[in-house]
Amino acid sequence: MPSQMEHAMETIMFTFHKYAGDKGYLVKEGRRVLMDKECPGFLDPLAVDKIMKDLDQCQDDKVGFQSFFSLMAGLTIACHDCFVVHMKQKRRK
Amino acid sequence: MPSQMEHAMETIMFTFHKYAGDKGYLVKEGRRVLMDKECPGFLDPLAVDKIMKDLDQCQDDKVGFQSFFSLMAGLTIACHDCFVVHMKQKRRK
Repeated sequence: MPSQMEHAMETIMFTFHKYAGDKGYLVKEGRRVLMDKECPGFLDPLAVDKIMKDLDQCQDDKVGFQSFFSLMAGLTIACHDCFVVHMKQKRRK
Repeated sequence: MPSQMEHAMETIMFTFHKYAGDKGYLVKEGRRVLMDKECPGFLDPLAVDKIMKDLDQCQDDKVGFQSFFSLMAGLTIACHDCFVVHMKQKRRK
């Protein structure tokens, strides 16, 4: 049985492939739907558009797993920074 | 209720803090226990030692969340590459 961490890593992989399909990369519509469904609380639509354009570095409308994971890393590290601030404030009370 | 993707990102954060504790970074023993418990199927002990030393860039025995997430990214991308090869082989059969 996988650990919680292994399960989390699997979830990120499988979620990418759910929206990428057999072709193995995300096109514009897949990226939009993925963010709408899977990360609704993270970003406003304008920020999503900006990030998605940056991820599509070759401007060929294809975002592979590695670029997608960079986005997830950025979001998770930003959330982690908020979490740390929140925990410090909580400890002070 | 968080999506599966949001839950996965939370799990990675909370797992880090479970082993980092209040100090907010992983020391050698915490890193070893985390890898043993949370990623038992990924790496042999020698590879873990090597990666852990690389992560501790300042050689002060402290690994923060951002460095830790780089390790998770590397592992997940490696797993993803294996997954893609496996899926291609499966489709050919």
